[in-house]
Amino acid sequence: MPASAPAPRANGARVLADLNALRAIGAYKTGVHKPTFSAAHKASLEWLVAQLPAAGLTGAIDGIGNVLTTSAKAGPKLLAGSHLESQNHAGWLDGPLGVVYALEAARVLNLDTDVNGAVELAAWCDEEAHFGHFLGSRSYVGAVSEADIDAARDRNNPRTMREALTEMGFAGRARTHAEPGRHIGYLEAHIEQGETLESGALKIGVVTSIVGIWQFRITFTGEQNHAGTTRMAIRKDAGLALARFCVAIDESFPGLCGPRTVWTTGRITLDPGAPSIIPGGAEMLFQIRDADPRVIDRLEAHLHEMARSVTAQGRCSAAVERIRNGLPAHMDASFQDAIEAASADLAGGKSLRMPSGAGHDAQILATIMPAGMLFVPSIGGISHHWTENTDDADIVTGAEVFVEACRRLLMR
Amino acid sequence: MPASAPAPRANGARVLADLNALRAIGAYKTGVHKPTFSAAHKASLEWLVAQLPAAGLTGAIDGIGNVLTTSAKAGPKLLAGSHLESQNHAGWLDGPLGVVYALEAARVLNLDTDVNGAVELAAWCDEEAHFGHFLGSRSYVGAVSEADIDAARDRNNPRTMREALTEMGFAGRARTHAEPGRHIGYLEAHIEQGETLESGALKIGVVTSIVGIWQFRITFTGEQNHAGTTRMAIRKDAGLALARFCVAIDESFPGLCGPRTVWTTGRITLDPGAPSIIPGGAEMLFQIRDADPRVIDRLEAHLHEMARSVTAQGRCSAAVERIRNGLPAHMDASFQDAIEAASADLAGGKSLRMPSGAGHDAQILATIMPAGMLFVPSIGGISHHWTENTDDADIVTGAEVFVEACRRLLMR
Repeated sequence: MPASAPAPRANGARVLADLNALRAIGAYKTGVHKPTFSAAHKASLEWLVAQLPAAGLTGAIDGIGNVLTTSAKAGPKLLAGSHLESQNHAGWLDGPLGVVYALEAARVLNLDTDVNGAVELAAWCDEEAHFGHFLGSRSYVGAVSEADIDAARDRNNPRTMREALTEMGFAGRARTHAEPGRHIGYLEAHIEQGETLESGALKIGVVTSIVGIWQFRITFTGEQNHAGTTRMAIRKDAGLALARFCVAIDESFPGLCGPRTVWTTGRITLDPGAPSIIPGGAEMLFQIRDADPRVIDRLEAHLHEMARSVTAQGRCSAAVERIRNGLPAHMDASFQDAIEAASADLAGGKSLRMPSGAGHDAQILATIMPAGMLFVPSIGGISHHWTENTDDADIVTGAEVFVEACRRLLMR
Repeated sequence: MPASAPAPRANGARVLADLNALRAIGAYKTGVHKPTFSAAHKASLEWLVAQLPAAGLTGAIDGIGNVLTTSAKAGPKLLAGSHLESQNHAGWLDGPLGVVYALEAARVLNLDTDVNGAVELAAWCDEEAHFGHFLGSRSYVGAVSEADIDAARDRNNPRTMREALTEMGFAGRARTHAEPGRHIGYLEAHIEQGETLESGALKIGVVTSIVGIWQFRITFTGEQNHAGTTRMAIRKDAGLALARFCVAIDESFPGLCGPRTVWTTGRITLDPGAPSIIPGGAEMLFQIRDADPRVIDRLEAHLHEMARSVTAQGRCSAAVERIRNGLPAHMDASFQDAIEAASADLAGGKSLRMPSGAGHDAQILATIMPAGMLFVPSIGGISHHWTENTDDADIVTGAEVFVEACRRLLMR
């Protein structure tokens, strides 16, 4: 590129139009309801495939529902993308923002002969974990076996992943895997899903690391009995033991955790769950997130100690099982620098280096290549809810910074 | 009957054989899994219909799944029965015991020309509330409309009651209603489902009243948000508010309740119930049982006060809604006397007058005719679990007392 020519820039109106086109597919109030392998999800993937020629890309939906693309252009290749499915009744930008930014980067940079190399777009399937745990990006990096797919089930519907793939028409297609050495790295944009940027009047988050997520299943076993004929004094109510445990966590964790630790009981199930039966079993899905594994170790040891104490009291037994162990992922330093430099050019330097409290496909890609992430502000920090939103002007600024960061990474 | 002839007596071996035949239909471990309108439930109803001729009865399955019968014999008619469906994975005697006792009473008394009158057997559908709330007996007394049936849904399966009735082949049949004045009353036998009889080495419970059941839906509303990006300090976690509420109930109710009050949280649901989302909504099904409505009033007022206090704290709001209001039902004094006299004859007088903590169809029949109930001991007080059991000798004693109580009521 001649030194005097301005750098190619994102087309903000086109980005907003694309995001609104995706919002119209599976619309729910001001957000979307687009679970993995729903009709709306499939339609969104097909919409994306139809946009590829205009970005100089060739691609298709693969055997696990990823959209993966290639450019025939010479020079370095940067992988970029996010996901198109949503949580149930959730927001319009969580996922599509990163896909449309990557699409825009490909449109702007791949057809520009002054730019060396190309952006190759990816839409990862099931980042929102309707069937598993980052199944799309994990398939791409080679971490999902056929047996894993055999075992996966839809958490919303009574169907297996195999049945869903057949319904979608994706069964029997090959799964595309990463080609070693092809990409200089992976860049993903996402809404912040918190209020750090908004409260600081900042426009761009430069992600330093993605926190680890440790997921636990905590089970309580008492004695199932009749809710009318069993005296209070002799009950072994597993649900009550669970409620006491939740309250005890809330009271003891603040004294043990780190400054950014968060923990959540996302689901509670009583067994058998009938109004007139004292629950003999109870289960909670409990999650801890922190960037420091030592904090997690301390909290996990405390959970086990609490469970032993419940069991020792003799009424109900409690057991803590770690079911997912997500180590923190660190973002590549040169990617952080590229985003920060692009922010200085196009966002008045209103950027902040910050960890991501949420998990993203970038943490999976980071296991095989350098990776980076860029955040845009979330209004009120709202996320995983249909009221999630970002100001249009901030969406446009984010797109401009993203395209420029891609250009800087390709032109290094 | 000549004064010198012995009273006709239950055939204990036949009663045990019948109960074991019903246990073999839908067997689950040592109990049964026979939800309303399952194949095993239907097979049990058909088994019962096949036994009717041997008891001098004519009958069929009606349009709501009740088995109702008539005897052509002259003289007074006593209605007797219980239910054949079970809770999920529950015991073999909860329901079938009372049906087989009534069948045995009909076999013994209806064909005996020395006995004036007859026992007419009933098996009430859905006492265990898979679709509603005593739908079978309430249909018989005229308290279930067609619209109620339209609205009823299976709590185990994604089907409506109409769909289930069609699957069973019962759709389109008439529902049988009570014929005013036909019966001198209703008698039902049941396992105690508690440990009062066993702990007192007693054989027969003479039920004085059936406690009222008040069912509440308690809902908590917070703010749904992302479990990774939302700081602990600003969370509005509806699930945590619910857990605190459960613990507060457990701590405050003992100071306000009566000597026999029991309360149970049978089901907890977090919304949306995903591992990585802070629940914005939470709901608990909460039940209180007592024979004294004044105790319930006091506890209900306290629940509302607790909810106001949660809401006043400003983080989550709580609301208490009464969804079922079961006033206590009193058993007829002459029925209690008949059971007690039969116990004196055949159970060595080892009987006790006691309230029922569990709900039974007898409370519904009591709204239109005199009603009585007889309990037999439950081993360890276990109920609503597949390990529920009663000693064979106690089952036989109970059958003998039941048949004799029926005879005394008919021969008054």
